[in-house]
Amino acid sequence: MASPRVHRESDSSIDRPSERREAVTPEPFPVDILRPVIGGIAPQVDGGKRPARAAVGDLLRVEADAFIDGHDLMSCAVRFRHDDDAGWSSVKMESLFNDRWRAHLPINRLGRYRFKVRASVDRYSTWRRDLRARTAAGQDVSEEYLVGAELLHEAARRAKAGDRRELVAMAEELRALALRVAKSGARADQGGNAAALFESIYSERVSDLMNTLTEASRTVNSETYFVSVDPAKARFSTWYELFPRSTGTGAHVHGTFADVESRLDYVESMGFDVLYLPPIHPIGRTGRKGLNGAVVAEPNDPGSPWAIGADDGGHTAIHPQLGTLDDFRHLVRSAHSRGIDVALDLAFQTSPDHPWVHEHPDWFHHLPGGSIRYAENPPKRYEDIYPLNFEGFEWRSLWFELLEVVRYWIAQGVSVFRVDNPHTKPFAFWEWLIASIKGERPDVIFLAEAFTRPRVMEQLAKIGFSQSYTYFTWRSTKWEIESYLRELTTSPVADYFRPNFWPNTPDILTDELQHGGRTAFLSRLVLAATLSANYGIYGPTFELQEHVARFSGSEEYLDSEKYEIRSWDLTNKQSLAKVIALVNQIRRDHPALQFNDTLTFHHVDNEQLIAYSKTRVGETGDDVIVVVVNLDHGYPQTGWLDLDAQALGLKADARYVMHDLLTDARFEWSGTHNFVKLDPHGVPCHIFALESPTTDGTN
Amino acid sequence: MASPRVHRESDSSIDRPSERREAVTPEPFPVDILRPVIGGIAPQVDGGKRPARAAVGDLLRVEADAFIDGHDLMSCAVRFRHDDDAGWSSVKMESLFNDRWRAHLPINRLGRYRFKVRASVDRYSTWRRDLRARTAAGQDVSEEYLVGAELLHEAARRAKAGDRRELVAMAEELRALALRVAKSGARADQGGNAAALFESIYSERVSDLMNTLTEASRTVNSETYFVSVDPAKARFSTWYELFPRSTGTGAHVHGTFADVESRLDYVESMGFDVLYLPPIHPIGRTGRKGLNGAVVAEPNDPGSPWAIGADDGGHTAIHPQLGTLDDFRHLVRSAHSRGIDVALDLAFQTSPDHPWVHEHPDWFHHLPGGSIRYAENPPKRYEDIYPLNFEGFEWRSLWFELLEVVRYWIAQGVSVFRVDNPHTKPFAFWEWLIASIKGERPDVIFLAEAFTRPRVMEQLAKIGFSQSYTYFTWRSTKWEIESYLRELTTSPVADYFRPNFWPNTPDILTDELQHGGRTAFLSRLVLAATLSANYGIYGPTFELQEHVARFSGSEEYLDSEKYEIRSWDLTNKQSLAKVIALVNQIRRDHPALQFNDTLTFHHVDNEQLIAYSKTRVGETGDDVIVVVVNLDHGYPQTGWLDLDAQALGLKADARYVMHDLLTDARFEWSGTHNFVKLDPHGVPCHIFALESPTTDGTN
Repeated sequence: MASPRVHRESDSSIDRPSERREAVTPEPFPVDILRPVIGGIAPQVDGGKRPARAAVGDLLRVEADAFIDGHDLMSCAVRFRHDDDAGWSSVKMESLFNDRWRAHLPINRLGRYRFKVRASVDRYSTWRRDLRARTAAGQDVSEEYLVGAELLHEAARRAKAGDRRELVAMAEELRALALRVAKSGARADQGGNAAALFESIYSERVSDLMNTLTEASRTVNSETYFVSVDPAKARFSTWYELFPRSTGTGAHVHGTFADVESRLDYVESMGFDVLYLPPIHPIGRTGRKGLNGAVVAEPNDPGSPWAIGADDGGHTAIHPQLGTLDDFRHLVRSAHSRGIDVALDLAFQTSPDHPWVHEHPDWFHHLPGGSIRYAENPPKRYEDIYPLNFEGFEWRSLWFELLEVVRYWIAQGVSVFRVDNPHTKPFAFWEWLIASIKGERPDVIFLAEAFTRPRVMEQLAKIGFSQSYTYFTWRSTKWEIESYLRELTTSPVADYFRPNFWPNTPDILTDELQHGGRTAFLSRLVLAATLSANYGIYGPTFELQEHVARFSGSEEYLDSEKYEIRSWDLTNKQSLAKVIALVNQIRRDHPALQFNDTLTFHHVDNEQLIAYSKTRVGETGDDVIVVVVNLDHGYPQTGWLDLDAQALGLKADARYVMHDLLTDARFEWSGTHNFVKLDPHGVPCHIFALESPTTDGTN
Repeated sequence: MASPRVHRESDSSIDRPSERREAVTPEPFPVDILRPVIGGIAPQVDGGKRPARAAVGDLLRVEADAFIDGHDLMSCAVRFRHDDDAGWSSVKMESLFNDRWRAHLPINRLGRYRFKVRASVDRYSTWRRDLRARTAAGQDVSEEYLVGAELLHEAARRAKAGDRRELVAMAEELRALALRVAKSGARADQGGNAAALFESIYSERVSDLMNTLTEASRTVNSETYFVSVDPAKARFSTWYELFPRSTGTGAHVHGTFADVESRLDYVESMGFDVLYLPPIHPIGRTGRKGLNGAVVAEPNDPGSPWAIGADDGGHTAIHPQLGTLDDFRHLVRSAHSRGIDVALDLAFQTSPDHPWVHEHPDWFHHLPGGSIRYAENPPKRYEDIYPLNFEGFEWRSLWFELLEVVRYWIAQGVSVFRVDNPHTKPFAFWEWLIASIKGERPDVIFLAEAFTRPRVMEQLAKIGFSQSYTYFTWRSTKWEIESYLRELTTSPVADYFRPNFWPNTPDILTDELQHGGRTAFLSRLVLAATLSANYGIYGPTFELQEHVARFSGSEEYLDSEKYEIRSWDLTNKQSLAKVIALVNQIRRDHPALQFNDTLTFHHVDNEQLIAYSKTRVGETGDDVIVVVVNLDHGYPQTGWLDLDAQALGLKADARYVMHDLLTDARFEWSGTHNFVKLDPHGVPCHIFALESPTTDGTN
């Protein structure tokens, strides 16, 4: 290694005297000899500096390493409370292996919980364990009875009256027994004369009681960690994106909110519960892009909805051709009545015609000559868009105005927002905006449209975004899907990051969808819908399998709705609407698919077949879903599937039924090694529900 | 999942009002819009609560995630200082991939360093990058010249006089150029009239200068992390353990320090630099164990050295048959003169005859009847040993006395200690003791003899132990060795845990050594010595291949030196002393083997062959060592080895010489795919030094 170039700083003003070394001869004694050590707590984000994320209805898994020196037993619990609780609750942790402990916290309210792990030296259980071993080895334990009596007496001093009486009585019985045993020359209570006493001593009830009475000097509490709770829909949601202007009743007729409302039956029939609309605001004229993104627009070209703002207004105005504010509110209410949330797009940028350009020139970037910089990624230029200057002189008034924009739409009934390119605005801005909104309305959901570097996407989740777009869109091979999903569904990323899987978006028509045919649409649909509890499609392009790119090598749609009004034939026989409806029905019927934390991949001896499961233990029985997808859009693929028996709660020799929820076919399987075959010309996927056998009843 | 049992705590006194929710409508504005985010800093231990570990001579690798919103460029540096430094130094970080940055800090002094990562928005480099892209695309950049001039002018205000003049001059030239270009109707400096100016603008020198002048509002410093620096021997050491009483000149003659001193030539000839002696103190009579650990000793049985303390004294006394304190000091000096440190055993327990038993009864555990508890692991009992009570009423005086014991031996010239069973004493005790000693003598080394659960071993390293015994002793298969070594040599464990590999100890004669023959000793030696920069053997049992266990299934040596005086024939022709000397010479000659951080495993298509490399870039050339070991002690094994070209700095079509340092054979290899064969009846290992070819000179 070549020596690094070291720069010695001339300015030592940053030197803080408080950080200088102090005398250490010898170190002061520790205040207390607290023996338990607690570490490796999950979930935690950035060492506890930010809250982990949960959703209403979660059983939040909390784990920690906890251990003590020596051979004593210990016990651990998670103490937790919601911000609105008057006191703490606690849940006992179970010991896993290698000093790892686990508990599940029931999360049932929006807002914020806090928790800490408590670990105690369990002297009573240690004494019982050793007593049992000594007695079994025939050792003289009369003095050990006295040790136990001391423990009980000592704990009794901290007990409530009733418990105290019981513990003292046990202690006295033990003392008497010790005397009798010593007098008789025996080594232990022989012949079981004190059977009732030992039944109490070895009972879980007394063990739990003794544990709650552990002296403070034998108990350690971890630092406090926070959990921010979003609504259940942040965890489990099914998105449908459409361009309102393309819902008109004829070709090139500008659609309205009323048209969108009449489209709700269709959206509901497919089982979606979020309807996401690209920006609904007036569109600028200056620099407007033409069809297929042409630099110069024809007079009748409608322009990109993301070029927000014109004489008619900006981010709180509605494009006049879509209708009125009342029309919008009507649409929102109508959607709500079907369980559908209307999601708006927060694209914090303007067209050159936005009112802010003249009212607040300081909110923009200026060139030395005084003109405003339009958006660019040199040498690329976006002449129809001005970025906002989040760091200019007037940043406070700009930030506040943007907060007001969000509040305005919340007041109209919107509680789900898709945020356009959040990674090009300061993290501090989003953290401030989302915290401000969540303080007022903890039920609001923000989806980050950030297809950027992994650390940046993670940071957006850490600072408050409820969901994020992902790289799923481009993950096609078995290895890509498995490794990416492992990253997303396990700690630390899963502690704060919620993926939302999109097979397509108005910006992304993947190579796979361009060339894979109907089977590619089907398999990408099933992968998205079953790998991730949150997913969405951009329709009707998706169900109608729109697959022609603007040019070879491009991911842009030809004749993209971003630049023109399209008209869609929803009655097309090739439409996937019915399959989508079925897949979404399966998602609603099966709680296993509404979470990501049990996702497990299973081995198939064919790289073109991917298999995975999700499970959910419920009050009325376990929900076990196994999905197998053929990743080859051209040819049938067969393989032997080895199920991970432990992940599914299967016995190695179990006989059971695999019920294919897509085709309603039932397969009788046994053991963990079974044959699968999937043909891209039929249905290229299985979504199996594992059922106990109905005939012979053995499992 | 069944609902967890939630216990609502009646005592809410623990509720701290300061943790209650505050109003958040809206959040206060952030103080500053600092755009860089820094995270994932390595090395760090427990989120920075404890220091990471380094040794004198290290180039400490520091890494961090650092990123900003948007597309601007940034720069990062590590700022660091030793406790004794007056100011900070800094080293530029290089950008890896996915927002990961790295630098190496030169560590050259004992004690403590601190460091923080600094990340800055690099507006100047961003402007240069964009200017280049705009110019190449033929865009009008005259206003961009003015933007650059503004940046230079603004930075000049913070610069020293000389730099200020240069920056202002560049700014003025840029302004003039902008005017000329605008006047001429051109879009950029065409024809290269300002070539000299642009050479300055694009120089690394100006970029570095502009970077140091970054405005404070564009710079973020991470929190401060600490690094504790041990002597180089903590990182690279070669241990030899022997029982002094077995160095006598005849059978059953009690050896002395003088005998040990005359054994130093032998130890030095094998290349060891730490000579570790089991406890050298008087041995108790009460409960003394007999030969092979018999519960009752014969009158002449010497007892276990770990049963410390008798009428002659305790932890600061010397067993009379070994000699005097002067003899011991003479031995220590004589060893030092050969570069060998004498390491003592800190076994903080006593025999029932230890003076402390009567002087300080409160330092022990008492049964209710008043007797002292001896050591046990119920139902097992160790009647010759009393454990100390580290938590009793008199814990402070006990702890201080134990500190005095360590100080006493340090005063006699000892600076390396092997600590017996540290995991059965409180972590708080070790942390206090080691910090106290290190405050006085930062060069002292503590080796933790803890063969316990992984989290406990890690904790001992975190709280200060310089080295630790490991599970290497029992890791035999390729998978076991590879996965364990990956854990030990990468972050986070490698940030604080230094392994010391022992093929055998007085307590552990592995099944592999019992039944694997001479080749098992050879391969375990080479594995220990080349996988880990710190390793040791318990001799002369090791070089004489002592391999008979007390009984089948036991890991205890038959006729163990723990309970009797043995006499060893060091002249035995089968002795491995010469091979050990060669292996240790190779370790001294090859810096690659003196560190663990570059350890890389290479693929061999045979589960019985394991291959790995270590590399070190030096001033005079790179040191590249490749080791291949046959793990099968019975049969020759062959295989194709695929070298990881990147780890070795090899070109895929390179021709080079593999020089086997054990046999002095040279093999001409080319590319990354080569054949290996190892025969357990010869030398079952290669230790290759990779050399450039000497004949045709192409590489």
